[in-house]
Amino acid sequence: MTHKATKVVIITEKLVLRQVTGIIEAAGATGYTIVAAGGKGSRGMRSTSRPSVVDEFGNVKIEVITRSREMADRITEEVAARLFENYSGITYLEEVEVLRSAKF
Amino acid sequence: MTHKATKVVIITEKLVLRQVTGIIEAAGATGYTIVAAGGKGSRGMRSTSRPSVVDEFGNVKIEVITRSREMADRITEEVAARLFENYSGITYLEEVEVLRSAKF
Amino acid sequence: MTHKATKVVIITEKLVLRQVTGIIEAAGATGYTIVAAGGKGSRGMRSTSRPSVVDEFGNVKIEVITRSREMADRITEEVAARLFENYSGITYLEEVEVLRSAKF
Repeated sequence: MTHKATKVVIITEKLVLRQVTGIIEAAGATGYTIVAAGGKGSRGMRSTSRPSVVDEFGNVKIEVITRSREMADRITEEVAARLFENYSGITYLEEVEVLRSAKF
Repeated sequence: MTHKATKVVIITEKLVLRQVTGIIEAAGATGYTIVAAGGKGSRGMRSTSRPSVVDEFGNVKIEVITRSREMADRITEEVAARLFENYSGITYLEEVEVLRSAKF
Repeated sequence: MTHKATKVVIITEKLVLRQVTGIIEAAGATGYTIVAAGGKGSRGMRSTSRPSVVDEFGNVKIEVITRSREMADRITEEVAARLFENYSGITYLEEVEVLRSAKF
């Protein structure tokens, strides 16, 4: 028994992690997952001149399973509007299926 | 040439990683990927009072590409039934397309 | 305002990270994300005899949001053809929705 849900993924600079989780919580989501990440963005290298997974993780990937598409859109738009003028990042949505009993 | 497959994602406490991989292998899956994660769950903070990606990774994110929807459902249901009464976690499914030549 | 895009995911040995990012850049993609990973593959254990998320991350998970399905297919096929004969790995595609304003 699963039901559809929208996962929001935000990849951005570690510096703004608290601001991102603040936006997520303000939107009413009760949980999220954070993973350390490196990489390269479209505006040039992110964080380090050589992306490395060993020495340096200048980025974070934050994922939120949302209760509604509206919540997903709100988080995505807030993050883009408030952070992506000054910090590099990308945000996108994925459709997932969650076990019906899951609380989130 | 790709074919559709179901990816199972399990995010839970690091403590139960061996139990999760045991359930995955018992279901007949031959591979999985593990990533260290932090975050916050719906039953309160996961693992640490302040989610951090630098100092502490109390959680793990485990991903399995399954050969069939039945295998995906079995893994998801077993993990939820056996572990999520006592440990915080979430599990969800995503549709993916795998290169036809891939063995998994 | 979102638009559909294809995300390419490549999970392989850390040893060939530079070759993977070279293939991604040669295909014209301008950004990618790298996450350290452990796990087990279908050809036996990957990297370490006991997968561990604490001590050892012998694998990497690389994600690219592509501008077109053609670019996604090209990256996937190149990676499989050039690297997966000699190194363990898997590559798959996921449909995502990106904010229309995003540059990638």
